[in-house]
Amino acid sequence: MTKKISRCLISVSDKTGLDKLLKEIKKYDIEIISTGGTYEFIKSKKYDCIEISEFTSFPEILDGRVKTLHPNIHGGILNIRDNKSHQDQIKKHNIKNIDLVIVNLYPFEKKLSENKSFDEMIENIDIGGPSMLRSAAKNFSDVTVISSINYYDDLIKELNIHGGATSIEFRKKMANETFNETAYYDSLISNWFSKENKIKFPNKQTISGKLVGKLRYGENPHQNGALYSVINNNFSNFDQLMGKEMSYNNYLDAFNAFELISEFKNGFATAIIKHNNPCGCSYENDGLKSYLNAFNADPKSAFGGVVAFNFKIEENLASELVKTFYEVILAPDVSKGAISILSNKKNLRVIKTSSTKIKGNLDYKILGGVLLSQDNNEFSLNKDDLKIVTNKKPSDKEFEDLLFAERVCKHVKSNAIVIAKNNKTIGIGAGQTSRVASCKIAVDNSLEFTSTKDVAGSVAASDAFFPFADGIKKLIDLGVTSIIQPGGSIRDEEVIEEANKRNVSMVFSNRRNFKH
Amino acid sequence: MTKKISRCLISVSDKTGLDKLLKEIKKYDIEIISTGGTYEFIKSKKYDCIEISEFTSFPEILDGRVKTLHPNIHGGILNIRDNKSHQDQIKKHNIKNIDLVIVNLYPFEKKLSENKSFDEMIENIDIGGPSMLRSAAKNFSDVTVISSINYYDDLIKELNIHGGATSIEFRKKMANETFNETAYYDSLISNWFSKENKIKFPNKQTISGKLVGKLRYGENPHQNGALYSVINNNFSNFDQLMGKEMSYNNYLDAFNAFELISEFKNGFATAIIKHNNPCGCSYENDGLKSYLNAFNADPKSAFGGVVAFNFKIEENLASELVKTFYEVILAPDVSKGAISILSNKKNLRVIKTSSTKIKGNLDYKILGGVLLSQDNNEFSLNKDDLKIVTNKKPSDKEFEDLLFAERVCKHVKSNAIVIAKNNKTIGIGAGQTSRVASCKIAVDNSLEFTSTKDVAGSVAASDAFFPFADGIKKLIDLGVTSIIQPGGSIRDEEVIEEANKRNVSMVFSNRRNFKH
Repeated sequence: MTKKISRCLISVSDKTGLDKLLKEIKKYDIEIISTGGTYEFIKSKKYDCIEISEFTSFPEILDGRVKTLHPNIHGGILNIRDNKSHQDQIKKHNIKNIDLVIVNLYPFEKKLSENKSFDEMIENIDIGGPSMLRSAAKNFSDVTVISSINYYDDLIKELNIHGGATSIEFRKKMANETFNETAYYDSLISNWFSKENKIKFPNKQTISGKLVGKLRYGENPHQNGALYSVINNNFSNFDQLMGKEMSYNNYLDAFNAFELISEFKNGFATAIIKHNNPCGCSYENDGLKSYLNAFNADPKSAFGGVVAFNFKIEENLASELVKTFYEVILAPDVSKGAISILSNKKNLRVIKTSSTKIKGNLDYKILGGVLLSQDNNEFSLNKDDLKIVTNKKPSDKEFEDLLFAERVCKHVKSNAIVIAKNNKTIGIGAGQTSRVASCKIAVDNSLEFTSTKDVAGSVAASDAFFPFADGIKKLIDLGVTSIIQPGGSIRDEEVIEEANKRNVSMVFSNRRNFKH
Repeated sequence: MTKKISRCLISVSDKTGLDKLLKEIKKYDIEIISTGGTYEFIKSKKYDCIEISEFTSFPEILDGRVKTLHPNIHGGILNIRDNKSHQDQIKKHNIKNIDLVIVNLYPFEKKLSENKSFDEMIENIDIGGPSMLRSAAKNFSDVTVISSINYYDDLIKELNIHGGATSIEFRKKMANETFNETAYYDSLISNWFSKENKIKFPNKQTISGKLVGKLRYGENPHQNGALYSVINNNFSNFDQLMGKEMSYNNYLDAFNAFELISEFKNGFATAIIKHNNPCGCSYENDGLKSYLNAFNADPKSAFGGVVAFNFKIEENLASELVKTFYEVILAPDVSKGAISILSNKKNLRVIKTSSTKIKGNLDYKILGGVLLSQDNNEFSLNKDDLKIVTNKKPSDKEFEDLLFAERVCKHVKSNAIVIAKNNKTIGIGAGQTSRVASCKIAVDNSLEFTSTKDVAGSVAASDAFFPFADGIKKLIDLGVTSIIQPGGSIRDEEVIEEANKRNVSMVFSNRRNFKH
């Protein structure tokens, strides 16, 4: 059923678009009541408007903390129009109907992004606004509610179609959007407050996202997909400089590439990701060299991959990149010349990333009816954290490679084995159900793209302990001379013995790095 | 600073624990004001209590829709006690301070689980309650707010320590919990409403969880972890019958095992999961046979795995299960005799699952600052959906195996290859950055545990198209006689030609099954 609007209440923090909307509202002879700043705005545009205090016969008090929390307002919104008893009551108390509620809330989200003080944040928690919105949304069968400037055009269209009235479908949709809005608003407050109180796992946790846009499809073409931004979490948005629209899987890979590259705070690091696993990673003192190392680790898998750099892309690198087909390239910056070279591949997505990752936040996994929340796996091992468990000690160069391999290994799906030399990966064994299988894959991968000579003297990292000696045998057979692993197996002795027998060094990190 | 409480407002939907709390409140001579049902309850316990309508000099109207939305209430809560202007105003308007607000909300969540009608759900949206809670939480520097019966004991303790007052730390924590609560409450409404309106990707999306408990640790020992239940999503809770506490990784594997097993609506299906990938799966007309098939597919990886069944565990199966070390066993039911056998492994976790999965919900992935939302990958292929692209047609038995392999393949991390025969897997290649590598792993895996004779005549499923013929060559060399894949590569012709040359059949499903 359409419902004619005779009176509306407007109380908006953001005045954008209000002028245009007022013009339409006045076309239908709708009476306007309003509060503080909004009232001033409406009067300044020469429209008639009744102040809320006149409507309630009660002044705005406590610096505006209490102005609309009044039975004349909420009774005017919440009464059921075709309920006789309700109608008798509002008549008796001289309450007038409010048929349209246009409210947007104090800008808590904006203030959050501006890192305001605690007290200022508290002052920006809107009380009256959500109350009016929720009242109007609950009574959507009689009342139209507009909770955001984004719906002004829809409202205008609706008023024009129905001659100053709205349809039930529209009111229902707007009520829905209103609860989406109030839930989002309180979720921001809740998460901000928990962070202030250093509460990691509150009794009730909400995670809130703002729609960036629908994606062409989800992980597969028969699944619909959409992208949301989650504020107050652990990385800034990607800024797409050129190329096709990012796909669902692009985002997955790009995020993982960015996470891996964020391990390297300086120097020149490159990561190439395919199907959510790295297929090449390198850490160098030169950008081009870094890329070529990562690429040559597994040129076959690199095809169609996502490449991330922790450094600015210059022309020489761009010229190299266009030789291969990539889905996405990420870097903190791209020179003008490089962009012009990359532009020759018109589908190639180039993303400018924020240069630093904000640490210390949580990782969430949603599995149907369950939400798993945990600390991010954030730490950097140093040489001093490692315990040498073999007779032989790693050389300084091996120590460097061990720490590099371990960093990459954190970002490979479990069971994970990374073989590396000279700060570049040469073989990665990912996602296997047994550790020895991951060793075998890493070894095969090494031999496929690296000469036996170059493989000799490499190191290996394992994301968890070796349950048997079989895995390290394969690694040592390949030419690995030093191994890093967390340790902790009941067969540690057997594994250490094998290393000693083969004159290979091994260190325990005491840090498991499962990633699933 | 501690703040003495002189007056409190109590309005609770759930009266549990209220009697005990009232006794404590009265010890400190705190005046109580209250609404409708809560007022009746308090009077019935012979405590003094002022009705809200007396306090506001305004009646409860509209069947209780408007009772507390009044300046005397919100002014009494929201005034800043050490702000002289605020104090002058409340004196002038004869508003009395409210120092403690105890409110719990209309049971929207409970009604949700009872599948109430749309109108009843709307009636269970609380308006006055959240307004009071939010007012009190905003002004926590002066006011104590209790948003759940779970905090009554904390309040009593606090009152006793401070002689009828509360500390700022307590008030701040309770304010935090209150916004967690209101965010959660509106998130439930928002998601329910979007479902009613069939809006899959609303402009603002909140996901809300209720803390089940902290876990011993997260994915790794140095990460804290916690488990939340998410109502209104796609599977019922697991009911743990015995064994140690479930770990973070147990939940991950158990969920994936349950998802895979849910593919099979009847018959006897078994899935064994390790590190989030299946290492064995079987579909049979007998429970014990089904398990043995799945186990024998890869006994090495099965060790320490998670096993899920779609059927009741009887004694004969239990006797077989205890021969291997498993982390978790899931089944829709377990016979008494079987439980008694399984109890010999006292750490073994046994989970009773709901027998059916509720379809049609969404999959969410949270990647730092981004939330990816998509349809679950829900569909079942039939023989009729498949397009035969080779000269040779699959036999009926091969068709059956192809559909089985494809179902399992959906649940293997990409790139995924599943080799199967007689409705059991014999080799799984998971999580590789190139398809040919996954083929190789699946082949090696087959040869390790299955005789060449038994491998002959097997079928293979690929989660995405073959970019080259190299992968299928390896599969055919093994003895695979029929292949299912979505198709869609620019080199499809080359791949089909290879199959034809080797007299192998191939079908296109037109359904990609990436899983990352």
